[in-house]
Amino acid sequence: MTSITKILLIGSLFMMAFTTPLKKIKVVFFGDSITQAGVQPNGYIVKLDSIVKQANLFNALELAGAGIGGNKVYDLYLRMEADVLDKNPDVVVIYVGINDVWHKAGAGTGTDADKFEKFYRAIIKKLQEKNIKVVVCTPSVIGEKTDDSNQQDGDLNHYSSIIRKIAADLSLPVVDLRKAFASYLDTNNPTNLEKGILTTDRVHLNPGGNLFVAGEMWKVLQPMLK
Amino acid sequence: MTSITKILLIGSLFMMAFTTPLKKIKVVFFGDSITQAGVQPNGYIVKLDSIVKQANLFNALELAGAGIGGNKVYDLYLRMEADVLDKNPDVVVIYVGINDVWHKAGAGTGTDADKFEKFYRAIIKKLQEKNIKVVVCTPSVIGEKTDDSNQQDGDLNHYSSIIRKIAADLSLPVVDLRKAFASYLDTNNPTNLEKGILTTDRVHLNPGGNLFVAGEMWKVLQPMLK
Amino acid sequence: MTSITKILLIGSLFMMAFTTPLKKIKVVFFGDSITQAGVQPNGYIVKLDSIVKQANLFNALELAGAGIGGNKVYDLYLRMEADVLDKNPDVVVIYVGINDVWHKAGAGTGTDADKFEKFYRAIIKKLQEKNIKVVVCTPSVIGEKTDDSNQQDGDLNHYSSIIRKIAADLSLPVVDLRKAFASYLDTNNPTNLEKGILTTDRVHLNPGGNLFVAGEMWKVLQPMLK
Amino acid sequence: MTSITKILLIGSLFMMAFTTPLKKIKVVFFGDSITQAGVQPNGYIVKLDSIVKQANLFNALELAGAGIGGNKVYDLYLRMEADVLDKNPDVVVIYVGINDVWHKAGAGTGTDADKFEKFYRAIIKKLQEKNIKVVVCTPSVIGEKTDDSNQQDGDLNHYSSIIRKIAADLSLPVVDLRKAFASYLDTNNPTNLEKGILTTDRVHLNPGGNLFVAGEMWKVLQPMLK
Repeated sequence: MTSITKILLIGSLFMMAFTTPLKKIKVVFFGDSITQAGVQPNGYIVKLDSIVKQANLFNALELAGAGIGGNKVYDLYLRMEADVLDKNPDVVVIYVGINDVWHKAGAGTGTDADKFEKFYRAIIKKLQEKNIKVVVCTPSVIGEKTDDSNQQDGDLNHYSSIIRKIAADLSLPVVDLRKAFASYLDTNNPTNLEKGILTTDRVHLNPGGNLFVAGEMWKVLQPMLK
Repeated sequence: MTSITKILLIGSLFMMAFTTPLKKIKVVFFGDSITQAGVQPNGYIVKLDSIVKQANLFNALELAGAGIGGNKVYDLYLRMEADVLDKNPDVVVIYVGINDVWHKAGAGTGTDADKFEKFYRAIIKKLQEKNIKVVVCTPSVIGEKTDDSNQQDGDLNHYSSIIRKIAADLSLPVVDLRKAFASYLDTNNPTNLEKGILTTDRVHLNPGGNLFVAGEMWKVLQPMLK
Repeated sequence: MTSITKILLIGSLFMMAFTTPLKKIKVVFFGDSITQAGVQPNGYIVKLDSIVKQANLFNALELAGAGIGGNKVYDLYLRMEADVLDKNPDVVVIYVGINDVWHKAGAGTGTDADKFEKFYRAIIKKLQEKNIKVVVCTPSVIGEKTDDSNQQDGDLNHYSSIIRKIAADLSLPVVDLRKAFASYLDTNNPTNLEKGILTTDRVHLNPGGNLFVAGEMWKVLQPMLK
Repeated sequence: MTSITKILLIGSLFMMAFTTPLKKIKVVFFGDSITQAGVQPNGYIVKLDSIVKQANLFNALELAGAGIGGNKVYDLYLRMEADVLDKNPDVVVIYVGINDVWHKAGAGTGTDADKFEKFYRAIIKKLQEKNIKVVVCTPSVIGEKTDDSNQQDGDLNHYSSIIRKIAADLSLPVVDLRKAFASYLDTNNPTNLEKGILTTDRVHLNPGGNLFVAGEMWKVLQPMLK
């Protein structure tokens, strides 16, 4: 590219930025406490916003969080009108499933696999009826041990499979956090710690974890912007 | 009453039946496996229908079941459009809560008390928005022992309190099955059996149990018909 | 009694106290975190020691705690040689059962009722083989609500029944804490609070709770000293 | 070795077999329902007995089962005097752990990992005090799916690690059923079925499973006989 061409190109981009009434793409992240923390400083949504800006897409994307601590799939279904649909998003990223598995132990109030799938599909159906694009995420981790010995590993793998199957059925993009975390931890958790690599407490993300999730989100969201 | 009077009366009733376009009151019973079984022969809805007919209210009431085994409060919420609202009922009787408590033990997939209340209120709100009258029931029993030693007694009492509180807040009629069962069993289960008085298996109703529930329902429904 | 008699009596008692090598009765309290805290200042064992001293039984009783947090009936069985038998007690007071019920919810590691009974009887058998007198206690509370709506009320009542049945079979004295707490709370918890009357956190005893337990223990232990 | 030597040797072995009152090695298999079924026709202990006989070790080994359905590690501890020590075994094979994990879901009466280890070590200690050789087994499966998505996979892996660690500490032979099953199923369960390959119901062994376990036991027991 010649210098002249460059100048012309930059100039026209510059003008576009000020003249074209850009339609921002609104993305809502819909989930639990991880997403609730995602809008805090160092949260994954804030980190993703930085990534977007570094990619010079200042005006293209508007990110919003809709996470509430302790939420399971049916909690999302219950509050989706007020917390998601009313915001008129273009894209909704669903990041749920950890509490559905985790709360089986503990309060004994997890979600059966068949009902998890039923509510998950019901949420997607309502979003798609409003022409909202849906991105799904598999649940990251409950415990960072890499020898498949975290108590809920089997169940998280099961629920991740359900999400992948739904995504395949409906041709939805998947942020496969379950797989990405496993792969990252295999390399970066050589002493088989149960927390402290990407999480503070086996579940909630530390700054590194938030950055990692932001990166994984970006890999899937970026191609959708073209 | 003279014979003549009787003939006249019967005649006029006969004519009314063919001439007056009676508006039937449609009642949908919305619940779990107990209600699913309620429409079977000997089920509580069938028994209630007999009671209604014995009261010479042949054409006044139309009873329908909308029960599905294993359902918890959020399952009702998920399927209420298709299974209840689309039937245009005048009255909906909500009979749910046993699985919300029971499944804590077992699969570990019960319902937290705060979410039980939230979904319960959400169901009522949707019904009332359609001008449907709502009747609520407290959950009957998981175990029939009368010395307060059935494993879930405490939790069932708790969830019953939640339902009574909602009913008081919203001035709804309550079929207090929890209380009615306790009272009946105090008298009729002198040897503290865990099943076989009103249930077959500590939860599901035997013929006597179905008749008993029908009777309790009738006590609350009958005054609503006037 | 004349003054002379009194003086002689007091004198002889005074001499006995200094001359007779009194055989102290050694009582070991065997249990969980409540008993572990029982030997702390304000703990129920410390309070009971004060009661004993107020009764002028300075030298008659030696109280010792053998409580470990989180213990269930089988944990007692595992450690009874080292922690109880090796101390050569005359009396052992078994106060266990709360964790056996409580941990069903939570970690999912409670104790089945039939195994609870089996281990409980095995502990008693081993104690009696050493000619140790056994006193049993029913489990106090998990939650102080008085309307039978604490989640584990049913199960605690069930396990209390098991203990009472064992005691009846073997003619053992029972400190029926379950019943005593219920009776006390009926009077002293008019607003149906779930904690703060006798416990700090629904389970562990506050100073009032420790004093109350000490008093209940004393009612059963005192007659055994005669 | 010359032919003459060979003949002499074979001859003397032949005579020994008929003249020497061979001391049989008594092996007791100590476990849960899988071991209880192990002494039934087609059970793994019966199959192992056939393997032993095929190896022409008719008189060398005496196999006995000491399995009781539903047993967890502490149940073994409770009944080890009557059911194992009183039989004067030379070798005890401990095969336990499935119920300790499995019953967390369900009745909520599994065993905490730290207590599992504590009781496991206590059993071994008692056996070794009697100069009994101990062989340990890792728990096989709860579900045969090969994609790490059986609900209890993580926990079974955890408890298997505990057993392997104990074995390493104490230099005990390990029948690593967990690993052996995983390896076998990887090859023989291409469609990721949850049962029917080595089990009838995800846990209990079918004839193929019993034969497989017998073979794995033999691999570890055979070298001990030399």
